[in-house]
Amino acid sequence: MLSKNTLKFIKSLQQKKFRIEEQSFFVEGAKSVLELLESDFEVTHLLYTDRFFGNHLKAIADYKGEAYQVTEKTLEMAGSLQANDSALAVAKMKENARFSVRQNEWVLALDDVRDPGNLGTIIRIADWYGIKKVVMSLETADLYNPKVLQASMGSFTRIRFFYTDLEAYLPQSKLPLFGAFLEGESVYTSKFPNGGILVMGNESKGISARLEKFIQHKVTIPRFGNAESLNVAVATAVICDNILRQITTNSKNV
Amino acid sequence: MLSKNTLKFIKSLQQKKFRIEEQSFFVEGAKSVLELLESDFEVTHLLYTDRFFGNHLKAIADYKGEAYQVTEKTLEMAGSLQANDSALAVAKMKENARFSVRQNEWVLALDDVRDPGNLGTIIRIADWYGIKKVVMSLETADLYNPKVLQASMGSFTRIRFFYTDLEAYLPQSKLPLFGAFLEGESVYTSKFPNGGILVMGNESKGISARLEKFIQHKVTIPRFGNAESLNVAVATAVICDNILRQITTNSKNV
Repeated sequence: MLSKNTLKFIKSLQQKKFRIEEQSFFVEGAKSVLELLESDFEVTHLLYTDRFFGNHLKAIADYKGEAYQVTEKTLEMAGSLQANDSALAVAKMKENARFSVRQNEWVLALDDVRDPGNLGTIIRIADWYGIKKVVMSLETADLYNPKVLQASMGSFTRIRFFYTDLEAYLPQSKLPLFGAFLEGESVYTSKFPNGGILVMGNESKGISARLEKFIQHKVTIPRFGNAESLNVAVATAVICDNILRQITTNSKNV
Repeated sequence: MLSKNTLKFIKSLQQKKFRIEEQSFFVEGAKSVLELLESDFEVTHLLYTDRFFGNHLKAIADYKGEAYQVTEKTLEMAGSLQANDSALAVAKMKENARFSVRQNEWVLALDDVRDPGNLGTIIRIADWYGIKKVVMSLETADLYNPKVLQASMGSFTRIRFFYTDLEAYLPQSKLPLFGAFLEGESVYTSKFPNGGILVMGNESKGISARLEKFIQHKVTIPRFGNAESLNVAVATAVICDNILRQITTNSKNV
């Protein structure tokens, strides 16, 4: 039976300081829990309802850690979702480790993306476009925030992350640096190489001046109407779409 | 001085039933308020701080309705934002009126987009891509919900909206009907005409079967990685980007 202390421990993980102290986080909802169970994260606790049990016998049988059958009400008490009729899982955070980058892959760099929903949506976009690595400034939202994980829809399990000082990281990366600006070359006519770093900026300030100086290729999404800007996650998707369309079309023509 | 009754009236507009009863809504934050004041909406109340007054003397001088200089605390009590150091304005809703559509313009049709943030983001995207008309199913989120207006960043003032039964509306529209599906023709190779209706579906269910049968052109965004889907607002942006890129590039080649 789930103890009061375990419930209290899970609830505490909604706060960043306890996540850091415990080096643990949780995800909620059937899709995210199933993706977490299939990933290489170390899952320590699994809470599931009758309903989830009935639908996912194999996933539960394959899981070897602590598991508790609970009511929906308990799930909602433990987690951050208003409604959860399926499951919640706790896992260990991964180390914040630097990754190497190949010359022919695209990486996202996020300069102070503060909104958890935006970060989660960007992770889902990266996963859609086959981008496997995301480097983030230290002021970017916390990957393990429940809102980030929720918006990423399980995609965070397939991406590698690294929080670092981008001002030190970007210049030594040796990859072509592209950045999204309101005044840059159109993404329709920009020539994208097969690999590089795409830098996306803060929701209200864009890319900071201290990073702007490193960016060799300023790109922009053509505007046909009157909105002043696009949401940062939306802009990330449109630029990735233009990059991937162009480089895959080019490789077919070779 | 702002009366308790006026404050109570504004607060009540957070609820849909009172918005409908009063045929009124409010927007918050400097950008949204300024865009509203410049629009053809009938603004009935303006609440602003010292700071907003100092920065926007002309906007306040040009405005002829009820106006109140208030504290930030009052703005935050009246509205839905946790922090608001600028302004809040109340305006009259517009009539839910059918609009005519030209053969050479693109219109968005939203089939039960339920999340207010998604609807607001889609409105901002429409405005960026020069789309001026959005038709929505009766189950789509309420345009005048404060979260929708907030996410639209003022763009709602430049778009015409019509809530209707899409099952009746779409077949009589006489425009080419395109819809976003996970299995359709790639947006990279689809041929887009200069005008049409782009149908976007519900967050979890996509486009409903009762509308699917009317859609002549199913389109999809090529996927390069493993995410199962994209957020509906993100997908709207990517498809609009492909449409506008193609039709503007074509017209240049003629």
